[in-house]
Amino acid sequence: MRTLRLVLICLLLSAGAQAQLQWKEVEPGIWKATAGQPEKVALLSVADNKASKTSLQALPAATFPLAEADISVTYRDGKVYLRFPLEKEEQIFGLGLNFKTVNQRGRVSQLHMDHYGGKDDGRTHAPVPFYVSSRGYGILIDAARYLTVYAGTAVRVDAKHPPELQDRNTNKDWDSQPYSDAVEILVPAAGTDIYIFGGPTAMNAVQRYNLFNGGGYLPPKWGLGFTQRVPTLYSQADILREATEFEQHNFPLDFIGVEPGWHSMSYPCTFEWDSKRFPDPKGFIDGLMAKGVRANLWLNPYVSPKSSLYPKVKPLSGSHTVWNGLVTDFTMPEARQLFKEHFIKNHISLGVSGYKMDENDGYDKWLWPDVATFPSGTSAEQMRQIYGLAMQKMTDEWYREQNLRTYGLVRASNAGASNFPYVIYNDYYSHPDFITALVNSSFIGVLWTPEVRASKSAEEWVRRMQSVCFSPMAMLNAWADGTKPWSFPEVEKAVQDVAMLRMRLLPYLYSTFAQYHFEGKPPFRSMNLVDGFAYTAQVSGGKLDATLNPYEAKTRSELKDQYMMGDNLIVAPFFAEQKSRKVYLPKGKWYDFYTGKLAGEDQVITVNAELDKIPLYVRDGGIIPMIPARRQAPKAGEVLPLEVRVYGTAPGSFDLYDDDGVSFDFEKGAFSRVTLKTAAGKGTMSKPQAGKPFGYQKNVSWTFMTK
Amino acid sequence: MRTLRLVLICLLLSAGAQAQLQWKEVEPGIWKATAGQPEKVALLSVADNKASKTSLQALPAATFPLAEADISVTYRDGKVYLRFPLEKEEQIFGLGLNFKTVNQRGRVSQLHMDHYGGKDDGRTHAPVPFYVSSRGYGILIDAARYLTVYAGTAVRVDAKHPPELQDRNTNKDWDSQPYSDAVEILVPAAGTDIYIFGGPTAMNAVQRYNLFNGGGYLPPKWGLGFTQRVPTLYSQADILREATEFEQHNFPLDFIGVEPGWHSMSYPCTFEWDSKRFPDPKGFIDGLMAKGVRANLWLNPYVSPKSSLYPKVKPLSGSHTVWNGLVTDFTMPEARQLFKEHFIKNHISLGVSGYKMDENDGYDKWLWPDVATFPSGTSAEQMRQIYGLAMQKMTDEWYREQNLRTYGLVRASNAGASNFPYVIYNDYYSHPDFITALVNSSFIGVLWTPEVRASKSAEEWVRRMQSVCFSPMAMLNAWADGTKPWSFPEVEKAVQDVAMLRMRLLPYLYSTFAQYHFEGKPPFRSMNLVDGFAYTAQVSGGKLDATLNPYEAKTRSELKDQYMMGDNLIVAPFFAEQKSRKVYLPKGKWYDFYTGKLAGEDQVITVNAELDKIPLYVRDGGIIPMIPARRQAPKAGEVLPLEVRVYGTAPGSFDLYDDDGVSFDFEKGAFSRVTLKTAAGKGTMSKPQAGKPFGYQKNVSWTFMTK
Repeated sequence: MRTLRLVLICLLLSAGAQAQLQWKEVEPGIWKATAGQPEKVALLSVADNKASKTSLQALPAATFPLAEADISVTYRDGKVYLRFPLEKEEQIFGLGLNFKTVNQRGRVSQLHMDHYGGKDDGRTHAPVPFYVSSRGYGILIDAARYLTVYAGTAVRVDAKHPPELQDRNTNKDWDSQPYSDAVEILVPAAGTDIYIFGGPTAMNAVQRYNLFNGGGYLPPKWGLGFTQRVPTLYSQADILREATEFEQHNFPLDFIGVEPGWHSMSYPCTFEWDSKRFPDPKGFIDGLMAKGVRANLWLNPYVSPKSSLYPKVKPLSGSHTVWNGLVTDFTMPEARQLFKEHFIKNHISLGVSGYKMDENDGYDKWLWPDVATFPSGTSAEQMRQIYGLAMQKMTDEWYREQNLRTYGLVRASNAGASNFPYVIYNDYYSHPDFITALVNSSFIGVLWTPEVRASKSAEEWVRRMQSVCFSPMAMLNAWADGTKPWSFPEVEKAVQDVAMLRMRLLPYLYSTFAQYHFEGKPPFRSMNLVDGFAYTAQVSGGKLDATLNPYEAKTRSELKDQYMMGDNLIVAPFFAEQKSRKVYLPKGKWYDFYTGKLAGEDQVITVNAELDKIPLYVRDGGIIPMIPARRQAPKAGEVLPLEVRVYGTAPGSFDLYDDDGVSFDFEKGAFSRVTLKTAAGKGTMSKPQAGKPFGYQKNVSWTFMTK
Repeated sequence: MRTLRLVLICLLLSAGAQAQLQWKEVEPGIWKATAGQPEKVALLSVADNKASKTSLQALPAATFPLAEADISVTYRDGKVYLRFPLEKEEQIFGLGLNFKTVNQRGRVSQLHMDHYGGKDDGRTHAPVPFYVSSRGYGILIDAARYLTVYAGTAVRVDAKHPPELQDRNTNKDWDSQPYSDAVEILVPAAGTDIYIFGGPTAMNAVQRYNLFNGGGYLPPKWGLGFTQRVPTLYSQADILREATEFEQHNFPLDFIGVEPGWHSMSYPCTFEWDSKRFPDPKGFIDGLMAKGVRANLWLNPYVSPKSSLYPKVKPLSGSHTVWNGLVTDFTMPEARQLFKEHFIKNHISLGVSGYKMDENDGYDKWLWPDVATFPSGTSAEQMRQIYGLAMQKMTDEWYREQNLRTYGLVRASNAGASNFPYVIYNDYYSHPDFITALVNSSFIGVLWTPEVRASKSAEEWVRRMQSVCFSPMAMLNAWADGTKPWSFPEVEKAVQDVAMLRMRLLPYLYSTFAQYHFEGKPPFRSMNLVDGFAYTAQVSGGKLDATLNPYEAKTRSELKDQYMMGDNLIVAPFFAEQKSRKVYLPKGKWYDFYTGKLAGEDQVITVNAELDKIPLYVRDGGIIPMIPARRQAPKAGEVLPLEVRVYGTAPGSFDLYDDDGVSFDFEKGAFSRVTLKTAAGKGTMSKPQAGKPFGYQKNVSWTFMTK
């Protein structure tokens, strides 16, 4: 059968044939089709997750969202050309972790793993070939290749909805980008699987996508605390001193990032402790743990000739080196086994809680070239697209076997990563672009942190600290700058306040991440995924300038500087030097988090900058459960007082989730879910199930913020 | 035989085999090998030029420049991987029309036709897969594909010359780019032809490359005069008025560029005169010719539904439109024939002298997508790489049939274009980058003009005018700005001076272009192609900054702001706001063009800015033949006084070339070549052959500039 298929495909490939895709519903509201001969190494096959079937069944019913006749596949030039229809006002989101644009319609990208280079051209840390439509569906092309996506730019001669013919000589409205009624995609491979995720809403499509990949990862509670990454060459004594300083400054600290200096050689790496800087690694980890602090180890994957891993890994690595280090073929189980043994023996058995996996993205100048070969036969291009994904999968499995959740960082990811315990970061530093990336991460099932490193002013410092504390990982990365949260004394209190606010919000944030896992809803989400949100892009410009704008291109405004944390909280960060900003409030009433006062309803408000506050707005009836300020996440077994803030006047309901905060026992039912309900100024909390972990006192204190 | 070869290749392709290339000397000093199965549509097959065999034989003998065992080819993943060795200090030039970098070693590019986007990443107007080595050879990969080139970046595990192992933790000299001993190239096709051009010098390699492609194009004399492109919507009356203004300002003008408004519709185009703006096209062309001015018509190739060409071209065009216009499949002779008939009938038979062929390069957002299909079966990718080349070839043939040389503009070119009558331009405008492009054009057999459009100051205006007058095409492109050469009255004289200086230098410049044709030497050339030039790059920087320089990358200085025009003249332009600049003088003595004074010898000199001068330096014994200032190039049959300037004190020799300046009769021997010789303060001119065109008076006036 496979041979016959291959013959058929060869014929099709040479004939340049067009064919029809056959769609099969593989999960509720998820359809799959196969074009040509898919490759063994693709994205989902590497991520290798199991769909969360129960959760998928709980979603609203969905029908196939497109007219099948409008979808086409062509086999040509050894490649697959795909076309999906677009409607007139339809918006497109996703297509990689973008930093400057949200609505991808009208854009061309080649989705290519790399460190982001300053342009939204497809070269980015998570070049995920998945897009979400404002009409309420998503499409994933499951191919580990450099796909080129024409998101509503290309126009066929026989277009169903052709653009208007315009004479540039005489028509003032001449548009350099005529109307396009399709997304067209070039898959540079002999075949691929394609998935369509139904809605009916865009959020539902994203949920289906995440749940198909196993649901979002529920981080350990300590992962949601504050983390400091120390300068590269700190010794273990330096690091323990650092932890003490955090105690002295009463600043939150749950885990420390240990940078390249822990290796006996880095760039390339040994993955073995340097005996001078870390004479007693076990003592070091224990010393940190005694302070309630965990350790996260930096690495890049390139194996140094000085590592004991080197001779074992050599036959299982690629033809080229990166910084003189071997590029292990992680598609090979034997190679992964070698790393597992080495890492468990040297780090995990000592109590190391996670990793920061660097430089698996780019840049081209030092990463393995596209002409590299690998012993598994996987092409260099495929390896580039999946390397970070494979590393995430591999290390996630190690911790699962220990029945311990982990939470770390990675610079390369792709489709299927929703259920992996990693947050993306990079060396870029534009604060507004960092927030745009946070917005965009919500479409493609990845997490992103707008890490803080340094600042030119105290104002910038506070603003960056405020946004990072309202992101998946509250991190100060001082690997090169040696900064501390209190490096700007004049704003030490404001920074401490926002870090403590994050700690106080842990019940809310943790329940939000549980929603990510059990329902597939991204914890930090674009306004475009929120019910009742409507944003009309303003089109402006189009003025001819022979150098700056020779094609009279118009600019389309975007909403990319605010997002939601969970169901109830809008976050609208300020950037340095901004005196005021607009905040878009969706349908319904919205209330100021700090005061409980009505902020607005289905409108744009203007907010003046207050240095010590990041603007936060809560929906009507919104419930925000909080705990008292503390430096570290609660341990398993701790029972804490719960302060539940209620906003507005409408009735409200909130699913408060809890578990032991460290293990995977919750996957076997060891968790609590209670309902907090409010109506007419009164609140109730349902009873937690006996025998399930629940770390909050039964007598909840209710604070009705809105008079 | 071909079937056997295909079978063999299929086996190799699946096995991922490495093989040895078989090199065959196809012309003196030019070797060819074939990897896999080359494609029918490649670069040289589209350019389809005949090698200048006689000229090739006149070059110094060359031996195969590399160790064959160090060259490798691998067939993998349906593609061809190539590797060529590099020596330690070897520099690499070419690899496309770059605007910011000259030495390509240490850089990665994907050679992809596009409008330049601000980064030297391979996306450019002439993404030529040809590189020249400082060791004195060149390599061409003859494939019309998006090749990825790793020019001394990738490092194999089994590298013959591996880099030094460095520990980034402790080694202050840690280099983010370890030493690489090879150029590696990914050819995304089943096969390709490869050519190696021998030296012994880098200039000889470039000469072989150009001569292999038929030698450089000898422009008509009028093409080397001044050209003004008028605003888009000018009528024929407006344009004739413009020509009169140039007379009134006594400003040179040989041809006028007529912009989109001559079409009855543009974007997409009809290629038919607009009856309102051009009620009498023949009268218009004749009226211009009466003023000694020729016409060059702007176009982009996208055929409007309003054009009479449209229904004829429809079955011969691609699946997608660009600005609602058809994308004609120019690989099909029937399609070219339709254009030929239309253009001869509507333009050439009226006396139109050339074309400006726009928008055959990019951008992606409106050009046909890589998923477009064409009736010839040529892939969209190949079509993208060769479209401009095909248009140049096609239009060049029309004028050859008329026995009239042409000279125009194009925004897309590739390997093989040396003998096509086109100069590249674009919408970019960085003046320093424009000069770098001029430098780089000399490696890859294309011509480039740093056109002038507008300026923020009179100083900038003069500086831009000065460099464009020392480039292949002295052009003011006022399509959008409506500027005239005298738009800045305070510098009108300085601008007129430099334009007149260009006209006076015509005998020198025209002989230099003859050298391009008969010897393959680029008329405007990088200092790296000049004997006795040695430049030591300064390596600096490498300071760690977590955001700006997280990999401690070092910067390598480049020489990219000076070039030579012909054998004898160094041009070192000033940019706006520069008060002084360095000029690198090669071995031997060099003299100030304006004063004849000694400027320096084998050294770097510092030159102070004088607004009305562009720094020019002449070699010792350098001869510069000139004519009196005039507005227009000499006509066939005119005989002009020759002033021959001589610089320095060494003996000198110069081949002065002349012909009728308009036709191709020179290809059949209708040209003169006389030798100007100087020694010890005396000069002689050899006698021109009787019956051959020679437009200079026999009694030459000698000016010995150096006392």
